[in-house]
Amino acid sequence: MFDYRRTHTCGELTASHLKQTVTLSGWVHRRRDHGGLIFIDLRDRFGLTQLIFDPAIVSKETFEQASRLRSEWVISVKGTVIPRAEGMTNPKMLTGEIEIEVKELEILSQAKTPPFEICEEETDVNEELRLKYRYLDIRRGDVSKKLVLRHKTMLSTRNYMNENGFLEITTPILAKSTPEGARDYLVPSRIYPGNFYALPQSPQIFKQLLMVSGMDRYFQIATCFRDEDLRSDRQPEFTQIDIEMSFGTPEDLMKLAEGLMQSIFKECKGVAIPKTFPRMGYRDCVENYGTDRPDLRFGMPLVRVDDIAKRSTFGVFLEQLNADGCVKAICVKGGAEISRKEIDNYTQFVAKFGLSGLAWMKHQEGALASNIVKFFSPELQDELIAKLKIESGDLVFFAAAQEDRVNQGLDHLRRKLAKDRNLIDPEALSFLWVTDFPLLKWNADERRLESEHHPFTSPNFEDIPLLDTEPLKARALAYDLVLNGYEIGGGSQRIHNSELQEKIFRTLKLSQEDIKEKFGFFVEALKFGTPPHLGIAFGLDRIVMVLSGTENIRDVIAFPKTQKASDLMMQCPSNVAFKQLDELKVKAEPVEIAWI
Amino acid sequence: MFDYRRTHTCGELTASHLKQTVTLSGWVHRRRDHGGLIFIDLRDRFGLTQLIFDPAIVSKETFEQASRLRSEWVISVKGTVIPRAEGMTNPKMLTGEIEIEVKELEILSQAKTPPFEICEEETDVNEELRLKYRYLDIRRGDVSKKLVLRHKTMLSTRNYMNENGFLEITTPILAKSTPEGARDYLVPSRIYPGNFYALPQSPQIFKQLLMVSGMDRYFQIATCFRDEDLRSDRQPEFTQIDIEMSFGTPEDLMKLAEGLMQSIFKECKGVAIPKTFPRMGYRDCVENYGTDRPDLRFGMPLVRVDDIAKRSTFGVFLEQLNADGCVKAICVKGGAEISRKEIDNYTQFVAKFGLSGLAWMKHQEGALASNIVKFFSPELQDELIAKLKIESGDLVFFAAAQEDRVNQGLDHLRRKLAKDRNLIDPEALSFLWVTDFPLLKWNADERRLESEHHPFTSPNFEDIPLLDTEPLKARALAYDLVLNGYEIGGGSQRIHNSELQEKIFRTLKLSQEDIKEKFGFFVEALKFGTPPHLGIAFGLDRIVMVLSGTENIRDVIAFPKTQKASDLMMQCPSNVAFKQLDELKVKAEPVEIAWI
Repeated sequence: MFDYRRTHTCGELTASHLKQTVTLSGWVHRRRDHGGLIFIDLRDRFGLTQLIFDPAIVSKETFEQASRLRSEWVISVKGTVIPRAEGMTNPKMLTGEIEIEVKELEILSQAKTPPFEICEEETDVNEELRLKYRYLDIRRGDVSKKLVLRHKTMLSTRNYMNENGFLEITTPILAKSTPEGARDYLVPSRIYPGNFYALPQSPQIFKQLLMVSGMDRYFQIATCFRDEDLRSDRQPEFTQIDIEMSFGTPEDLMKLAEGLMQSIFKECKGVAIPKTFPRMGYRDCVENYGTDRPDLRFGMPLVRVDDIAKRSTFGVFLEQLNADGCVKAICVKGGAEISRKEIDNYTQFVAKFGLSGLAWMKHQEGALASNIVKFFSPELQDELIAKLKIESGDLVFFAAAQEDRVNQGLDHLRRKLAKDRNLIDPEALSFLWVTDFPLLKWNADERRLESEHHPFTSPNFEDIPLLDTEPLKARALAYDLVLNGYEIGGGSQRIHNSELQEKIFRTLKLSQEDIKEKFGFFVEALKFGTPPHLGIAFGLDRIVMVLSGTENIRDVIAFPKTQKASDLMMQCPSNVAFKQLDELKVKAEPVEIAWI
Repeated sequence: MFDYRRTHTCGELTASHLKQTVTLSGWVHRRRDHGGLIFIDLRDRFGLTQLIFDPAIVSKETFEQASRLRSEWVISVKGTVIPRAEGMTNPKMLTGEIEIEVKELEILSQAKTPPFEICEEETDVNEELRLKYRYLDIRRGDVSKKLVLRHKTMLSTRNYMNENGFLEITTPILAKSTPEGARDYLVPSRIYPGNFYALPQSPQIFKQLLMVSGMDRYFQIATCFRDEDLRSDRQPEFTQIDIEMSFGTPEDLMKLAEGLMQSIFKECKGVAIPKTFPRMGYRDCVENYGTDRPDLRFGMPLVRVDDIAKRSTFGVFLEQLNADGCVKAICVKGGAEISRKEIDNYTQFVAKFGLSGLAWMKHQEGALASNIVKFFSPELQDELIAKLKIESGDLVFFAAAQEDRVNQGLDHLRRKLAKDRNLIDPEALSFLWVTDFPLLKWNADERRLESEHHPFTSPNFEDIPLLDTEPLKARALAYDLVLNGYEIGGGSQRIHNSELQEKIFRTLKLSQEDIKEKFGFFVEALKFGTPPHLGIAFGLDRIVMVLSGTENIRDVIAFPKTQKASDLMMQCPSNVAFKQLDELKVKAEPVEIAWI
């Protein structure tokens, strides 16, 4: 039998291996017949190596076999490493200096013609077809390299966490349905018909229980599940780097998280990132960027101009200010070149986010110009120029509405402008801690206070007195980590003191029955001696997306699902046998799914 | 605010820290008031440290607080490391030389009286109560240390696999129901009512697809699910170290696995195990030990004595031999001391495994003795003595029946005798590769051949011709790793050649429709250029059980389920809201579960 065990991969032979006898195995990437010779690019996930079949060297039978080879056949060859002919070297390839003069060939398996070409780079083959044949799509270096990055990210995380005294502890997948939060995936129980497990939306309860258990420092790279209608950056199952520690403070946790990010970006991308990340309070974020996850790779902050607008005579602004709205502006450097048509497009763009219009001014020929400039006195114009740092050639957009709408619209506008105007350095990594989130929010429908995160989140200790007076002003000890405008992690200090916990429950006007129904055994568990503890959870998929420069979450998952939560490759979900449902005592009418 | 951040854990202070000012935080393990002083054993998962409150040193208020402390309260103290008084040192404790003279105390949280005592060692509290309060049970060092071992095992595995070029690739939990194998857990789809996902019984299909994808070397510490009635060593969700590699041979894989075991046992237990493990063919295992997972920590092989028995005049033996049965014996060293009553007990024991009786002989006073010895001539007795190596004081058990029953009964008897007679060194680690499993078995009900594992398992290449002549004699390239009588891993070389695959399908008499229905898209995937590949899967839970010396799988899982697949702590499975089932278009009648 032919021994197909490799001496090298297809990505490692260079001039330093000349004259060596080697065995390579892999996939036929391309075959070219040229000048009586047969050239094969042999591929594996490590690279490509050129093989040459010379009829003067191989047997007639082997040469004939070589002439039958087709793309994606799997072969193994023995041969000698020789230099490529002059002028034929390829400096772009790691193995571009050499080729293999084949002596022996074994065809390990043949292949049907694949439904799309296996090219290394990004492809314009439609994504549904690629998902159906995901096992072929992964053969493309573009995809496999992302899975390698994911592996490295996980391993780097685990070693870093271990070095910092954290234990990885696996928590259950068959867990309990919780009445709050997103929609659960349910699993019928066979032993207890009519009862269900739920797949966990996160290991939150388990990790807090592990702190009650005294496990001290926990982490887990955990699969989480949410049965939600999917946006393009969501998957029904996703992966979290889940962390919890006892006897620490938010400062300790932030330092740990910064170290984790340094370790990941260093080991997986070879990039040094800052030792500590800047911080911004929630209110400042929203005031200056309209969002709690600002992308700081570029400027263009939102600037409140209420004070100037209210002294103008522009009715739209005055009307909004009188209705408790606000006016904010952003200054687009060099934006005076933006045409009226483009401005109209931006106006339509912000309409999707509830802004009914955009006012604007350009600074051209030494003065502000637009159809609303006339409502601003020369003094007010000077104030605008100073406040927004407007220079010649700039454009200013204004939005006036209720504050939430202004913020949301201008946040989207700011990010769209940055993309359109190429303001984002693709290599930039902008980390930001967002802190001082509000502890509570007002549920207008139910006319009651509710927790911004969950009722176990600790208030900032300074703000505890506010709970009795102005509860909406109380800040939580919660923190999010933002990277390039994406929330990549979020966490909080939890309440460990039962008196404070009772106070929060009273503030939320929860009765003992409510507490039992909503939080069940967990509140009981916290009464048996709970250490101060806090934690954070990072979106692993998101981090790997940033590392690999993709905005498609499906790119960083080996076997992803569509936005309809289906797997086109396995064709699932699927019908199951009646017997299976009978055993579960579950009734369901199957609908047919039309698969591609 | 009191700064509860620790300078040390409760398990690290020794005489080398004397005079240092330290902060410790943890749980009150025990309080003793003695000679006007208060002694507290402070506990965390790292150990215990003795605190001393001296009214001459702490404030009156602090002393009063200390006198209020109860078990399991969480406190933080600042104090000085001092030597224990003469005669009060405890050499069994890491921290037994010192104590902390407390200066300041902060009560971080109080605790209700726990339902059972938190003692370090094994406890006789009933398991249901411990599972209900699992978060308290984990506080016991006996439990937490097993979770630490599990963490170390996982990390050691991951680093070893990474060093050997394997990538950890996460495969889906929401997967497709497969018609064969054990019972699936199902998950109703909301978007496609009446269709279901299944939780994977193993990542088998995914890992083979990753080889088709060219990912080359895959591993994963994967959660797997089986909805089976649980034996005491099973859980509905369990963890596998799942491995697959391309372009390798069983030799490569066994070497890799041996290295993995060395790495785990070295790093997690500090034990050096052999560099290579012995191997035994399936037929030899069954012949000599009655099982394909023999425990070789002790001897007592099964010895076939058909040849002697058929020349005896013992009717029971002759009858079984005439009915194509067999007679096997085991020799129990020093077993002559076993009483008639005990022998009767062993006879009842093997009856549970289908053996209707046990014959026996003792070697006493220079001769074999029992009520069946008379059926054996002196020459046959000498042959027995020689074949079974019977010495004075030994006991021999005989079983005569159909071969399967003899094997099963004597396997159990052999293991029971080893336990009863203390033949097992608790520190011994006996690894064994079992190889040369049969490829096929005969399904007598359906009167057809079927695969012993699955139809993608490669036959031993030498045995391919047997497929046409004596298919039941064909050996598979499959291998199990056995440790101390437990199967801790199993795997095989897979078929990568479509002609061989077709031959196997023909041997199994599967039609194209059968193939499509049973193996679906997977067979199609294998046609696009499949490399030779092979793999193995280890039971992580089982390995950690051996490492931590427990026979209860629940001991090595943070939040285990009962044998009825319920979680006594969370009380799940549970009823869910009507709305949840409505959204899934699933109907089910809830039954009530009586929780402890």
